[in-house]
Amino acid sequence: MTENGDIAALAQRIASGELNSEVVTRAYIHNAIAAQRLTNCLTEVLFEDALKQARELDAYQVQHGRVMGPLHGVPMTFKDQFNIKGYDTTMGYVGRTFQPAAEDAALVDMLKRLGAVVLAKTNLPQSIMWCETENPLWGLTTNPTSQDYTPGGSTGGESALLSLRGSIIGWGTDIGGSIRIPTHMMGLYGLKPSSARLPYWGVPVSTEGQEHVPSSVGPLARNLSSIRLVMKELILSRPWEFDARCAPIPWREDVYQEFRAKHLTVGLLVDDGVVRPHPPITRVLMAVVEKLKQAGHDIVEWNADLHPECIQVLDDFYTADGGEDIRIDVTAGGEPFIPHVEALVNKGKAISVYQYWQINKRKFALQQAYLNKWKSIKSPTTGRPVDVILMPAMPHPAVPHRSCRWVGYTKVWNVLDYSALVLPAGKVMSEDTEAQWNFDSRNELDDWNAAVWKNDGAQMAELALPVGIQLIGRKLEEEKVLAIGAVVDGILR
Amino acid sequence: MTENGDIAALAQRIASGELNSEVVTRAYIHNAIAAQRLTNCLTEVLFEDALKQARELDAYQVQHGRVMGPLHGVPMTFKDQFNIKGYDTTMGYVGRTFQPAAEDAALVDMLKRLGAVVLAKTNLPQSIMWCETENPLWGLTTNPTSQDYTPGGSTGGESALLSLRGSIIGWGTDIGGSIRIPTHMMGLYGLKPSSARLPYWGVPVSTEGQEHVPSSVGPLARNLSSIRLVMKELILSRPWEFDARCAPIPWREDVYQEFRAKHLTVGLLVDDGVVRPHPPITRVLMAVVEKLKQAGHDIVEWNADLHPECIQVLDDFYTADGGEDIRIDVTAGGEPFIPHVEALVNKGKAISVYQYWQINKRKFALQQAYLNKWKSIKSPTTGRPVDVILMPAMPHPAVPHRSCRWVGYTKVWNVLDYSALVLPAGKVMSEDTEAQWNFDSRNELDDWNAAVWKNDGAQMAELALPVGIQLIGRKLEEEKVLAIGAVVDGILR
Repeated sequence: MTENGDIAALAQRIASGELNSEVVTRAYIHNAIAAQRLTNCLTEVLFEDALKQARELDAYQVQHGRVMGPLHGVPMTFKDQFNIKGYDTTMGYVGRTFQPAAEDAALVDMLKRLGAVVLAKTNLPQSIMWCETENPLWGLTTNPTSQDYTPGGSTGGESALLSLRGSIIGWGTDIGGSIRIPTHMMGLYGLKPSSARLPYWGVPVSTEGQEHVPSSVGPLARNLSSIRLVMKELILSRPWEFDARCAPIPWREDVYQEFRAKHLTVGLLVDDGVVRPHPPITRVLMAVVEKLKQAGHDIVEWNADLHPECIQVLDDFYTADGGEDIRIDVTAGGEPFIPHVEALVNKGKAISVYQYWQINKRKFALQQAYLNKWKSIKSPTTGRPVDVILMPAMPHPAVPHRSCRWVGYTKVWNVLDYSALVLPAGKVMSEDTEAQWNFDSRNELDDWNAAVWKNDGAQMAELALPVGIQLIGRKLEEEKVLAIGAVVDGILR
Repeated sequence: MTENGDIAALAQRIASGELNSEVVTRAYIHNAIAAQRLTNCLTEVLFEDALKQARELDAYQVQHGRVMGPLHGVPMTFKDQFNIKGYDTTMGYVGRTFQPAAEDAALVDMLKRLGAVVLAKTNLPQSIMWCETENPLWGLTTNPTSQDYTPGGSTGGESALLSLRGSIIGWGTDIGGSIRIPTHMMGLYGLKPSSARLPYWGVPVSTEGQEHVPSSVGPLARNLSSIRLVMKELILSRPWEFDARCAPIPWREDVYQEFRAKHLTVGLLVDDGVVRPHPPITRVLMAVVEKLKQAGHDIVEWNADLHPECIQVLDDFYTADGGEDIRIDVTAGGEPFIPHVEALVNKGKAISVYQYWQINKRKFALQQAYLNKWKSIKSPTTGRPVDVILMPAMPHPAVPHRSCRWVGYTKVWNVLDYSALVLPAGKVMSEDTEAQWNFDSRNELDDWNAAVWKNDGAQMAELALPVGIQLIGRKLEEEKVLAIGAVVDGILR
């Protein structure tokens, strides 16, 4: 029952009466408990509520002879950042416990109206601002493949849980890679939409009010069709009627179909010029490229111009308050800082509002420059601009706990507020450890990543850790990215 | 030739060969010079360039047997805030002179591609942040009806020029009412779109980088069909390909047609609870209401709940830097402050970035609360939510120079980033001065506005000053607001 990760198939089995919601919910609860024992991925559990919700859905179906909505009975889980009425939203902070939310987040509300069942909330790092999953309140979430490895973060509770079939759709947020990194590390599918596409209302966040590089809400799942379906159903429900920040852009099925059918022009970025990817990351990426070429698609070289400047802008925004926002939250609970968060809040003094505006002007200029870059890079053979960028999600697969250091492959797209999809494309193999890796050190981070491979590569191969790829569309091009994702996924599988 | 303010009619006469671009440009230059003599409305003049551009358009038409674009030969003018290559963008600051722009603003570029001719740049207040039009660099722009009166601001050069037929489309910006106020005062049509609809790239602004309540670019004209046409043609040109900030929302002709044909539910706001409108403002508004009712439309009472909180948020944003941005610009030129700007920069000390984020959280909460308010107010007869709000643009018509004080009727919609249209609906009449005005003072601003009427009402009637009305749609609902504007305009004329 939980084997098939496709929500359309599950909803169909429930709608046809083959399964009922309560049975499905119980099966997922069973898996979620096992996942919790193995990885410590859960925070608040809603199992009793979920069963009650499932029984109500079953009763509705019996009474009305039809399902309540297209996601009737589909169990979902949420990073412990989404408000769910009656439960804490901790964001990994001790000081936020015992303050149950007064109402559901807009996204939770919309999903419930579509028939989804809310199972549990999942772990995340203290402050959210980190790509692993650890906090003094709930502890460390581990990778199901090895307890010494991280499942990624900040949406790491979801990635661990989903990979163990304790959920079928997980909801995260992403302001630097927090959906895409755990997706990549756990061999899942994850979408970071542009920020105005899905509702953020009722989702507290660190550095809240910092809107210049906004965090996005998005789904993680075990297959792409589930991501597409949940996006489509949410957008058909008109998110802009639930959240004032959402843009009134309907679901564009015509765009989706166009890019499913089209000969694609794909921009290829192999290396961001700062941290060279591990051999398996490059091997998997180039294998995708070969298959795309064989299928008749056009590959165009992309470059990392403007990426360092974008990353600098985001780093400046993260700490513009001198760490005050995060310090207040950590202090409120009297808890210790996790090392990465401590480094972040002590990175520099608060700047003035006037200086802050100057950073934002730099951001606009970079967004405009990237638009011009996108328009200027064209296929030498067809003269067409690229439809999508294909690139790594990270320069390494899952790593041992507390050893992540570089999220430059993901965070640049937050600064630009572009749409980005990560999908699984391979695994680390023993041949990768034997491959020749011509490594000329470019900087200290490059050395660090090479050392990770040298130390852990053999084990990564033994664990057969997943390797994802990342597809990038421009702002609010979710349908296009999902369609091209389906093309790539079809070629790979 | 300049009598008819309809750009479609003008473009048609040029396309058919009845007129050529050079003749049209000369006629408008003639009027613009006269307007300048009367009102001091211009800053940089581009007459030689405009004639060169017109001759090139004429040559193109002869050579190709067709026009260059749908706005071929249509003369336009721009508030002195839009970059035009080779000319200063002063924003009313001495310190910004003699620094010609390196390239055209995205909007100027797009309009030129559509065939528009750029005639001149127009006056605005020092710093832009004021609803009249005066600066130490270019001086005071006066109302064509009386040199003692303001034509409004900050886009006041445009409103004076347009009303004297020195232009056919004028471009302004609006972060508190700067398009709508001069539109209202001069009996014109003006649209403030939501900020993501038209390109702002290449348009410097005061407190630049302050993006939480963004300024919008929009058109002013002598009739509504011109506003609609220029919006439609720009959006068909895909603004998001020219400005990274624009949302990829196509021109929605279906929405436009739907609201042209529909029985409307109109929310009516007569008084914002702070400053009671002068008798002619209310008389004109209620006459529109009567005509709408007669045409079968449904009028629903609206209220000013949340407006004071929205206004407070915007005031906090305006001065979050303690006036540093504006002070730097004024100091750079060694010029004196105009009194309103001096008061603004000295309003309070700079706040911290963390406090700034807290204001932004209040803004989100207000935007969300207003969305819920909009959804909750329904027609008692049909149960339908309102399509549009009908209300005054200001609590008074044009006033003597330096006597504006309250822009609460317009600025609330900037905080919400809603779409807003102002159109002319009547004039001050002598009967207004004789009308009974039951005035119970509510506050010092209310007293001030009553005193303006007491002192100047008779003269306002003698001058037959225009009175506009304001139509409000939600975020990114420009097609709807333009369609309902056409319905109202059709009823009135």
